[in-house]
Amino acid sequence: MSELFKGKPTSRRAFLRGSVAAAAGAVTAGAAQAGTPDPLITDVQPWATGLGDGVDASPYGLPIEYESDVVRRNVEWLTADTISSINFTPIHALDGTITPQGCAFERHHSGAIDLKKEDYRLMINGLVDKPLVFTYADLERFPRENHVYFCECAANTGMEWAGAQLNGAQFTHGMIHNMEYTGVPLRTLLEEAGLDVAGELQDKWVYVEGADASSNGRSIPMGKALGDCLVAFKANGEALRKEHGYPVRLVVPGWEGNMWVKWIRRIEVTDGPVESREETSKYTDTLADGTSRKWTWVMDAKSVVTSPSPQSPITHGKGPLVITGLAWSGHGAITRVDVSKDGGKTWETARLAKEGEAKALTRFYLDTTWDGEEMLLQSRAMDDTGYIQPTKAQLREVRGENSIYHNNCIQTWWVRPNGEAENVEVS
Amino acid sequence: MSELFKGKPTSRRAFLRGSVAAAAGAVTAGAAQAGTPDPLITDVQPWATGLGDGVDASPYGLPIEYESDVVRRNVEWLTADTISSINFTPIHALDGTITPQGCAFERHHSGAIDLKKEDYRLMINGLVDKPLVFTYADLERFPRENHVYFCECAANTGMEWAGAQLNGAQFTHGMIHNMEYTGVPLRTLLEEAGLDVAGELQDKWVYVEGADASSNGRSIPMGKALGDCLVAFKANGEALRKEHGYPVRLVVPGWEGNMWVKWIRRIEVTDGPVESREETSKYTDTLADGTSRKWTWVMDAKSVVTSPSPQSPITHGKGPLVITGLAWSGHGAITRVDVSKDGGKTWETARLAKEGEAKALTRFYLDTTWDGEEMLLQSRAMDDTGYIQPTKAQLREVRGENSIYHNNCIQTWWVRPNGEAENVEVS
Repeated sequence: MSELFKGKPTSRRAFLRGSVAAAAGAVTAGAAQAGTPDPLITDVQPWATGLGDGVDASPYGLPIEYESDVVRRNVEWLTADTISSINFTPIHALDGTITPQGCAFERHHSGAIDLKKEDYRLMINGLVDKPLVFTYADLERFPRENHVYFCECAANTGMEWAGAQLNGAQFTHGMIHNMEYTGVPLRTLLEEAGLDVAGELQDKWVYVEGADASSNGRSIPMGKALGDCLVAFKANGEALRKEHGYPVRLVVPGWEGNMWVKWIRRIEVTDGPVESREETSKYTDTLADGTSRKWTWVMDAKSVVTSPSPQSPITHGKGPLVITGLAWSGHGAITRVDVSKDGGKTWETARLAKEGEAKALTRFYLDTTWDGEEMLLQSRAMDDTGYIQPTKAQLREVRGENSIYHNNCIQTWWVRPNGEAENVEVS
Repeated sequence: MSELFKGKPTSRRAFLRGSVAAAAGAVTAGAAQAGTPDPLITDVQPWATGLGDGVDASPYGLPIEYESDVVRRNVEWLTADTISSINFTPIHALDGTITPQGCAFERHHSGAIDLKKEDYRLMINGLVDKPLVFTYADLERFPRENHVYFCECAANTGMEWAGAQLNGAQFTHGMIHNMEYTGVPLRTLLEEAGLDVAGELQDKWVYVEGADASSNGRSIPMGKALGDCLVAFKANGEALRKEHGYPVRLVVPGWEGNMWVKWIRRIEVTDGPVESREETSKYTDTLADGTSRKWTWVMDAKSVVTSPSPQSPITHGKGPLVITGLAWSGHGAITRVDVSKDGGKTWETARLAKEGEAKALTRFYLDTTWDGEEMLLQSRAMDDTGYIQPTKAQLREVRGENSIYHNNCIQTWWVRPNGEAENVEVS
């Protein structure tokens, strides 16, 4: 780091004489010349002379206006309209791991509906001894759990199969969010409905559907339903947002976001999968030979450099540079992330901000020095099953180029000497 | 749990004949009589017949209108105006541990100021070899860390010293929030300024001040400054909110919130504490004999039941009841929380949602059955130093009733047979 502030220090002696103007010469920012006093240091700043906002200014606060570019965005050409569509988390501008609800991506099949808690009902029926209908108030009486999980749309990075299409991590990898959910285990509710959860259920499934017009029905094998699925009503401590399924959604940890049914209204225990529209004509993976893989629920290990990236260029010239990004796996915890600056020829192991947690986002950092030359930036995730994130070429070899879903390939950003970055493919 | 849904099950045989109306008779909610079809089940609901909002409806989302009571609130009589004042996190309505920035409490001494990133400067001066001024862009070039920490105002629960004053967990215990912070260790910046961080520094301090008119200067002993303090610029993944110190605040884990200086503009290395206004006339603890304790920085272990509580009454009658709350300690991790229903005569050990993390909120649950009788609900936290949260009587014995700060006593809610709760004292 020693190069970063070269030329900036003033002598301690000069400084201790109280010459603030001398220190001001140390500022690198803006157009200040060395030795030219920085008015932001030497003058009394306007924000230090008066009073600011009171505590009644925002009962529920929003980001400051200067952050107005850090918002969800949709891609106009991607869908016919904005109702059955998607928007993207601004992951290029976030850090840490938690996604605030206000900028957490949305995917709707018939729009975000308005459903009050008092109008909410959840039916459990089918092959259960005691079909039940729960109100919202009923759900609050069962033992709750809290877990941080990522929710990734199966189509995340889906536009990239055929080539580098979208210029920004928000658009290539932003169909993901990571929140702390509070809810009741689905297992608990199935048991309440008389399902013998310790019995012979390996051939049984549940069919889950939402209260919106699309209903977005999906089949889930019983092992997962009795595993870590949650019927959730809070995210990051507060009520789910309307667009995330208020008042209640299903959480299916590590599995594709389409199965995390919003406004969940019915859970039917069945003898087999329903083979609904959302798991046949959609959310299956068309291979090179025209056949389709189905039941590809788990989101494989994946990662992306969020900065620098096309929407987050390097603006400071050569010297110390923080490269950062996100990694995740639907199979378990991230154990390691490597970063390459040369398109995958050589790799350096990144620092994980915390030990990886199962089915949750992990933040990684590579604290490095940039020589000012171009880079082909990549990241490569590994999870605790030993799986290593593949290259796009490796994925295509197995899956062809017809797929939309489950593209977890290594992403490349071409960073130019001017610090700008672009989405590219490397062979 | 068997009592909860008594009378609700219909027979599986009846249900499998396809009689949805029969199942509707099982609903407990609303005014539906047994056997009376619930129109929310039997009719096509309005929200299932049309389209909802598109993904362009809210680039940055807010809570749904039905949650409009889950907001920060101030207490009119508490301060002369709303500028040098405080508002409170609606902890009675939250679950999990993360506090969304939008409803995380604020405390200002001269209001929340408007400070752009490009106008931001952080000076490190005093007893350092290379006094420096950092811009915001400079800070982004140092290695970052992510940590979830609670921030509690020293005055949280301060109005309760003399008796039960405020009727709601939001007001008695809501001067607290818990967020995932991203920032640069203060140690790193002090080292950059030439401080010999491995040297003999045990008598040295730092004096930190903010860019607002109050400046809110505080002295921090060097051990803490070189320990876990962060110069933070993100919370819960995104930029700090204006009211939380945008663009940069100090994070002083486990220590009183007043030291978490917002809009931090200067860090001076000194030979001793400055004895500023904020650490002499304020933020000291006046004892019964009129003398004051000072340098009482650490927030001792504490807990509160958030539901049921005055703002979150029991509405469902006797039977299964989830009692939940929060526990935390500035000394380390919460290891155990006990709950009493009889004002401290008998205790049951609560379930921690996750293993306690150092200096972060821990959520606890007691999954119980309510007999419909009155309760005197209390919670009692223990941390990994072996410390046990005291009663108010124990605290008063040592500290009298003149204090404002550092009231970490056991809180009591009197829950009446009608489910309503009230703030009371028990002897």
